[in-house]
Amino acid sequence: MQQQSPTTPVIAEPNPTHPAYVVGVDIGGTNLRLALADLSGTILARWSASTVDIRNAAKVVILIAQGVDALLAEVHAGRTALRAIAAAVPGITDPTRGLVIATSYLLGWLDVPLRALLEAELRIPAAIDNDVNLAALGESRTGIARTAADFVFLAIGTGLGAGIVLNHQLFRGHAFTAGEIGYLLVPGVSEAPIDRGQPGALEQIVGGEGIKTQWRRLWNSTASTLPFSATPTEIFDHALEGNPLAQQVLTSTARTLSFAIYNIALILNCPLFVFGGTVGLHPALIEATQKLLAERRARVQPRLLPSTLGPDAQLIGAIRLALDTAATHTLPGNR
Amino acid sequence: MQQQSPTTPVIAEPNPTHPAYVVGVDIGGTNLRLALADLSGTILARWSASTVDIRNAAKVVILIAQGVDALLAEVHAGRTALRAIAAAVPGITDPTRGLVIATSYLLGWLDVPLRALLEAELRIPAAIDNDVNLAALGESRTGIARTAADFVFLAIGTGLGAGIVLNHQLFRGHAFTAGEIGYLLVPGVSEAPIDRGQPGALEQIVGGEGIKTQWRRLWNSTASTLPFSATPTEIFDHALEGNPLAQQVLTSTARTLSFAIYNIALILNCPLFVFGGTVGLHPALIEATQKLLAERRARVQPRLLPSTLGPDAQLIGAIRLALDTAATHTLPGNR
Repeated sequence: MQQQSPTTPVIAEPNPTHPAYVVGVDIGGTNLRLALADLSGTILARWSASTVDIRNAAKVVILIAQGVDALLAEVHAGRTALRAIAAAVPGITDPTRGLVIATSYLLGWLDVPLRALLEAELRIPAAIDNDVNLAALGESRTGIARTAADFVFLAIGTGLGAGIVLNHQLFRGHAFTAGEIGYLLVPGVSEAPIDRGQPGALEQIVGGEGIKTQWRRLWNSTASTLPFSATPTEIFDHALEGNPLAQQVLTSTARTLSFAIYNIALILNCPLFVFGGTVGLHPALIEATQKLLAERRARVQPRLLPSTLGPDAQLIGAIRLALDTAATHTLPGNR
Repeated sequence: MQQQSPTTPVIAEPNPTHPAYVVGVDIGGTNLRLALADLSGTILARWSASTVDIRNAAKVVILIAQGVDALLAEVHAGRTALRAIAAAVPGITDPTRGLVIATSYLLGWLDVPLRALLEAELRIPAAIDNDVNLAALGESRTGIARTAADFVFLAIGTGLGAGIVLNHQLFRGHAFTAGEIGYLLVPGVSEAPIDRGQPGALEQIVGGEGIKTQWRRLWNSTASTLPFSATPTEIFDHALEGNPLAQQVLTSTARTLSFAIYNIALILNCPLFVFGGTVGLHPALIEATQKLLAERRARVQPRLLPSTLGPDAQLIGAIRLALDTAATHTLPGNR
């Protein structure tokens, strides 16, 4: 064991007399979520705020700082107890330069130096990454994929994205867009070229908005007790109850998704897909997709499992990234 | 610099008084090719033999040993000058255990311990890998992809396969089948489940046999001067000459291939695809596919380039693997 002076805080070994924390941030299109964790990664407090009408990155950073102070107050700590912060961003992110390259229209960010903005505001080490990548990191470190060297995290909510872990490491690709699977071309999707920022061909069927569109095309008031404006979760529940219209939407969604998973599994020889997001977590979708995949008689049959971290996956991934950031930024100074 | 006694051969620094060699082997369904190289990787002699009617692995190994002796005789060297051998295998290969898990019907191998057979026969360190993976390794080390961290080698001959290089390393997948893209499901292919060993849905259109099938479906003696039994290369040449039937086959092949490349590029964020194999090397296919990809308006437009190693790609990859094997197996004994 290395000798440490009693006043030197040791990262990853919480010290009750010198408590230390990290904050994980999940920036959504409409919602901002923060969680304060100790150095073991245990969440001690949460905070959230609406980001509706707040598209400016500098304003979001000020809102994050307010959240950080509220969380620290909750554990009766000051800013000196905070070791690092990490944020999950809904867009293409360069974690090495700390840059948000582009987000969807909800935030509309282009080349935002988010890491520098966070570090300037909070005066602590900061890190950023794509939200689906951080959800994959969360599942890889503390979730259902802990023992998996290779797996793909599928985030199916309003849209559709994937976080790819190969050899226990996030694989981001040379321009940080690996896993942009919403645009995949599989049998049955539209083959028309799609402009950047518009929903992709696969997403038009498998994403939450796509599922709603499928429902509205089939819907009539006599064939279903569900309204025209039903949500994907309601539609899938309705399918489990035996409604033929809802079952048609479920089957069409699962079939298209099974083609995409089959393709990804072939290319990467990937044995595990972890389903996350409000739509992805629905058991009816996972079960229907697994059944269709089994019919393909592939050499390697991928397993489909629901995320165990659920809606917290990206927040927990952000906490893990913050812990990594705290370790790499503060340990050298303590040696 | 480490001191070496004058009689100790230094791997990777050829010594004219103590010449040392490696052999690369390319095992095909109908043909066996060997090349002898010095420790800089320069090919000094080649040897080949037919493997028609020779399906037994032990017999192929004996044939390889005959080829090795013929090559050594050509440079007036004995077996003691041989440092290592590596073989490219047309099938699923576990390079860590030196096992050929399965090949196509042409060889029909199942769980063949090829590395052990080669080492027992030749008494030198041996290594094996899938032929498309070794073609990718060849392009990565000495071919057109030397500076590319991430790229995909597309082998289009009778069939269709891919070798994936990520972060300058071959990515093989957890069961060594990464890049089995012949089975990809894209718009326009058959959606029916396909039994193992049968040509995949994508291969049925983009592979050499698939291209011939497309041609035979369209062919009539008045519309073309080419025979019913034309080869893919002849068909693509005919397309360049302006024949509408051949152009239809070229466009359909390029269109289906462009969907597959688009999907792989999305998943891996892969900026470079290197085309190899007799069909893949045809400039008409590369040009038509690149044009169709450009119309997709993807964020990252992948570049399609012909292999610079051509038909030698897998043989040169095998030589590189043999050089690696020589270095890792003999250096410790010289220290």
